[in-house]
Amino acid sequence: MSFNTFGRMFRVTTWGESHGPALGATVDGCPPGVRVDEATIQHWLDRRKPGQNKYTTQRREADAVKILSGVFEGQTTGTPVQLMIENTDQRSKDYGDIAETFRPGHADITYWQKYGIRDYRGGGRSSARETAARVAAGGLAREAIKALAPGVQITGYMVRMGEHEINRDRFDWDQIDRNPFWVPDAQAAETWAGYLDGLRKSGGSVGAVIEVVARGVPAGLGAPVYAKLDTDLAAACMSINAVKGVEIGEGMSAAILTGERNADEIFMGNDGEPVYSSNHAGGILGGISTGQDVVVRFAVKPTSSILQPRQSITKSGEPTQIITKGRHDPCVGIRAVPVGEAMMACVILDHLLMHRGQVGEHRGSIG
Amino acid sequence: MSFNTFGRMFRVTTWGESHGPALGATVDGCPPGVRVDEATIQHWLDRRKPGQNKYTTQRREADAVKILSGVFEGQTTGTPVQLMIENTDQRSKDYGDIAETFRPGHADITYWQKYGIRDYRGGGRSSARETAARVAAGGLAREAIKALAPGVQITGYMVRMGEHEINRDRFDWDQIDRNPFWVPDAQAAETWAGYLDGLRKSGGSVGAVIEVVARGVPAGLGAPVYAKLDTDLAAACMSINAVKGVEIGEGMSAAILTGERNADEIFMGNDGEPVYSSNHAGGILGGISTGQDVVVRFAVKPTSSILQPRQSITKSGEPTQIITKGRHDPCVGIRAVPVGEAMMACVILDHLLMHRGQVGEHRGSIG
Amino acid sequence: MSFNTFGRMFRVTTWGESHGPALGATVDGCPPGVRVDEATIQHWLDRRKPGQNKYTTQRREADAVKILSGVFEGQTTGTPVQLMIENTDQRSKDYGDIAETFRPGHADITYWQKYGIRDYRGGGRSSARETAARVAAGGLAREAIKALAPGVQITGYMVRMGEHEINRDRFDWDQIDRNPFWVPDAQAAETWAGYLDGLRKSGGSVGAVIEVVARGVPAGLGAPVYAKLDTDLAAACMSINAVKGVEIGEGMSAAILTGERNADEIFMGNDGEPVYSSNHAGGILGGISTGQDVVVRFAVKPTSSILQPRQSITKSGEPTQIITKGRHDPCVGIRAVPVGEAMMACVILDHLLMHRGQVGEHRGSIG
Amino acid sequence: MSFNTFGRMFRVTTWGESHGPALGATVDGCPPGVRVDEATIQHWLDRRKPGQNKYTTQRREADAVKILSGVFEGQTTGTPVQLMIENTDQRSKDYGDIAETFRPGHADITYWQKYGIRDYRGGGRSSARETAARVAAGGLAREAIKALAPGVQITGYMVRMGEHEINRDRFDWDQIDRNPFWVPDAQAAETWAGYLDGLRKSGGSVGAVIEVVARGVPAGLGAPVYAKLDTDLAAACMSINAVKGVEIGEGMSAAILTGERNADEIFMGNDGEPVYSSNHAGGILGGISTGQDVVVRFAVKPTSSILQPRQSITKSGEPTQIITKGRHDPCVGIRAVPVGEAMMACVILDHLLMHRGQVGEHRGSIG
Repeated sequence: MSFNTFGRMFRVTTWGESHGPALGATVDGCPPGVRVDEATIQHWLDRRKPGQNKYTTQRREADAVKILSGVFEGQTTGTPVQLMIENTDQRSKDYGDIAETFRPGHADITYWQKYGIRDYRGGGRSSARETAARVAAGGLAREAIKALAPGVQITGYMVRMGEHEINRDRFDWDQIDRNPFWVPDAQAAETWAGYLDGLRKSGGSVGAVIEVVARGVPAGLGAPVYAKLDTDLAAACMSINAVKGVEIGEGMSAAILTGERNADEIFMGNDGEPVYSSNHAGGILGGISTGQDVVVRFAVKPTSSILQPRQSITKSGEPTQIITKGRHDPCVGIRAVPVGEAMMACVILDHLLMHRGQVGEHRGSIG
Repeated sequence: MSFNTFGRMFRVTTWGESHGPALGATVDGCPPGVRVDEATIQHWLDRRKPGQNKYTTQRREADAVKILSGVFEGQTTGTPVQLMIENTDQRSKDYGDIAETFRPGHADITYWQKYGIRDYRGGGRSSARETAARVAAGGLAREAIKALAPGVQITGYMVRMGEHEINRDRFDWDQIDRNPFWVPDAQAAETWAGYLDGLRKSGGSVGAVIEVVARGVPAGLGAPVYAKLDTDLAAACMSINAVKGVEIGEGMSAAILTGERNADEIFMGNDGEPVYSSNHAGGILGGISTGQDVVVRFAVKPTSSILQPRQSITKSGEPTQIITKGRHDPCVGIRAVPVGEAMMACVILDHLLMHRGQVGEHRGSIG
Repeated sequence: MSFNTFGRMFRVTTWGESHGPALGATVDGCPPGVRVDEATIQHWLDRRKPGQNKYTTQRREADAVKILSGVFEGQTTGTPVQLMIENTDQRSKDYGDIAETFRPGHADITYWQKYGIRDYRGGGRSSARETAARVAAGGLAREAIKALAPGVQITGYMVRMGEHEINRDRFDWDQIDRNPFWVPDAQAAETWAGYLDGLRKSGGSVGAVIEVVARGVPAGLGAPVYAKLDTDLAAACMSINAVKGVEIGEGMSAAILTGERNADEIFMGNDGEPVYSSNHAGGILGGISTGQDVVVRFAVKPTSSILQPRQSITKSGEPTQIITKGRHDPCVGIRAVPVGEAMMACVILDHLLMHRGQVGEHRGSIG
Repeated sequence: MSFNTFGRMFRVTTWGESHGPALGATVDGCPPGVRVDEATIQHWLDRRKPGQNKYTTQRREADAVKILSGVFEGQTTGTPVQLMIENTDQRSKDYGDIAETFRPGHADITYWQKYGIRDYRGGGRSSARETAARVAAGGLAREAIKALAPGVQITGYMVRMGEHEINRDRFDWDQIDRNPFWVPDAQAAETWAGYLDGLRKSGGSVGAVIEVVARGVPAGLGAPVYAKLDTDLAAACMSINAVKGVEIGEGMSAAILTGERNADEIFMGNDGEPVYSSNHAGGILGGISTGQDVVVRFAVKPTSSILQPRQSITKSGEPTQIITKGRHDPCVGIRAVPVGEAMMACVILDHLLMHRGQVGEHRGSIG
């Protein structure tokens, strides 16, 4: 894992800035023989695409992916897959003030302090546009997973928007695709729509919590000590823009539980595989998957590109007040759902390959 | 970062099992000329050492570190530093039942499913003893940091034990070393002592939340996109045994905030460096340090080695009931404090070296 | 270093096939503030470009590089630099026989055996076209080196073509750019021209030895044990298509020398830096640069795309005879010269950054 | 691959100095279930052990390996294997002059220039003793290979000592273990014994060329572009102390061949696998194994620890003359034979694991 590379065997290097000619993902280590074409990957990009409804930024990007290498006659060849997305909606505008001032809560100031130079147009490298490349890579990962572990199903959804949480008693997988927030709770979807509308009009913003679940993950993925499945998921999620917290299973609440309540009891299932009385562990014990649902959750902070004035300074150290006009994303967490799914897909595939590499098909059997 | 290696330039590979002859850390990439000896590192190991009070496991380990390489005449030479800790208290006992059954909430079952073989003695590789090696490596990292960024100060403490939280209004740095829980709140220390005593007697266990703060970290550490400072901290903390959640700054609560509240406003400080009105960001923007305190928090689940009987299965798939007798750690979170500090030290040093490597001393100046 | 990535801090991932839409290099870890534009990099690509004279393949490629990311207002920003070269001369032709048969001496058969799929058009990923991406990355590396170690000068040249060797007594740096073979010996250039003309007409091919020298490399670059400067140079050169041997300094001939002759004696130079009586070591001792010229040499085998018929088999295992018609490169070694220079540049820069990262500016001084 | 780590999946980190308390190899990524114990590994160490005959250094080291982790009940567990060798013959002596002067041809001066500190006792980290750790790791790799590709057989031998070459017409595998030089030519063994005796008495030294052959390597190992099998072998061999050149198959002589002669013709073998008319390629095409013998050769320079006086300087820049008294290795190449075998074993295993990880068992079949 290097500065802009994620993964050990399935290695994704994203590149590109918000307002440069293009951005993309260089994907190395993909297994050969995976059936994939641009349409397959486009499907996932379309889910993340901005400007699809009034709740996300009005930037209009086709986000059309091109496969430049590594795929031949509809199959991966085992060589690097270059996934490129051209930037088309780089509105010409005067960036003068953004170039000279630092927006509170943005990477403006730290990029400047670190590098002494920054591409300030649209946030440059720190723009959420970078996540389009992740979604493209995740689309490829999903196809590769199908070949290695066909039962795996990866689904993300929102469980919190600001003060509003879903009601888990109303949890319905089928609702997720039926509302603009990917909320598995029809009633929450309605409430949140009104709430977000208000925020949008007032030029405010709010945070969110996303949950991503991988069902059908075989037991045995992961590795001690620093390549634990949960370690890699935590890194994957924390690397997404604006994420400030990551949880596996019980997450931070594990601190409140007693050992008696927290330890998921084990039984033999009818199919000869172990089953568990509960899933406080989020499908991971000792860094290795148990065969239960792998459950990760992450918090996305509210965007600081807001209409309310905030105090800041300029490059020359002068105090100034900042209001971010223009496109506005009242809850960037919404678009983080497909990104979280993509990261889960990349991590699962990486661990499938690592496991096959080190251990092969052999597993300790029970019963 | 490989299976048992952490870090990119300052690379720590831990090795060893709970009941093997020894365990340790192979540390590669340490700068030369760092003054260090066994006593310096022993100081940190002694903080983590079990059996120091009635609140932690009664295993008696000297945890005496030996430096086998990479240090010459009291200074690192730039070559690998081997830090070895011999295991001395490997009580001879009959492991028969542990070998054949899987403890709920333990890595027993997943190690078996993954590898088809496991060193079941004391948890083998998944034992918390592995963290002694991290603490040793962290001790070395602290000395190296002193040379590169002398102002850095790393301190960990508990902020929650089960249902009990500290009162931040009573926060007192000086209290941390004065109680067995590293709690910065004298009153909490007292309450928790009684609470934990009860748990210990009943054979139960409870989780905890640890906060680790690095003060004096220069602005500019970190890197987009997958080597963000917060990404690496999240991986570092999640890789610690029993950790289920990691937060930076506001953490999961960032989801609840509005953009207005969350964006820390920026001002010029008297020393010509930017200062901030608040630190919701936890000292990191866009994956790069701001110069504010770097704040990370992680939740440790309660140990599942408890006296209450739990339902499980044997290797042959038979149902069984498990009670963990013997040494018992009612709140493993306590010993996670020095471990969290060690991981913070390793991450900070790694990023100091990476930054110096890529960027050198040059920084974008303000004002 | 992963499958298609070279380097540790300055990491170059090349991607793309001979007859796909494009190929390129994703360069991560470049220092910020390096002045570079497309013209700077194009300069080096033009040196390698095929079809410039009758001695190299007649494929007509503009090899025009586009910088898609990581450069802003003429300077690198410290984020990934995407260097893309579009393929334009993908002659439409019937690949039927190449698709079904394996050319002796080519990667056709091994790619098939490994992956079960191969992009056979023009050699796909195993084509020498991949080296264009290296040259582009090397062009960027050269600019970065200028900022870190301005005295470094990297020059490659041919010292052998088949049976013909240069005469070192006639060595003249100025000759290198004056002949199509980059030979530092005017007389050899003439002889070789006639020799190669004959080979070209007969449809034969021949091998070559390239020497690359880096002058002005500061002492202290490299690292024990597996990241030695010579280890990395050996890997860099051996990774170039068709290379079968790599030598540092005396190279294979070091085996013939006695210890007395081989040990370069050390003296103090007038500028207070050590000087040596000779350079059998090729500028590297114990894997670390001495400050002398760093000298690497590699042998390029003759291309097996020749007009003489060779015996082979088809995918279905049937015997067949192969003649490679069409474009023909009688001495592929010629175009390997700029490639060797590029790899030297990448390795030197990588080690400059690694050294600065681990050690900083501090060095052991003499005298 | 980091500073002191070799390999991608089977990762060997060696540590330790010549005169420290111990040295060893931390081996991560080994498959589980490999049967191994200390005796298995000791077997290979004994082959490399110094002081076994009058032709190698008289340092007396038991070189007894201890397995400190990662092996349980005679099998690897999949966790890191720590292989430690204690140094026992650290003759107490006055190192005063070695500490202050730089031996020509040694790493003394470069370690000093790089790090500003060096463990000068016995060469410290740059001592050939480091290779003992490689041999231990290689011993483990051999056992793991047995499980994955049982047909693989790795054998090293000397083909040149100074001016003396073997006669390939007399090549006899059975001779290799019957003489102190591992020469596959009985007559050469005799001649060389006399030659080396003379050198030893005069206090001189000479270089050597070692060839290592891996038979039975399955087709398909390796990977484009920077993880080619030959790239990794070149790095592996060049990383051994005193190595100055590496060749695959024809090696440097490939430059002299015509394309017609160099291209190994392909036929179908009786067992349904391709066979070749020759093996100029050294068993590798396009970086991937063909199924033929994998042949690597490397040149070891003569040791510069000789009795003849050589001119050098001190740390303070004063001229001085150096004679290396004490233990003396007239041809260090001899002990490089088991080291070369060990590196071949590590590379082959690493690629077996990488191939299994990325591709699985699936291969393109012929016929």
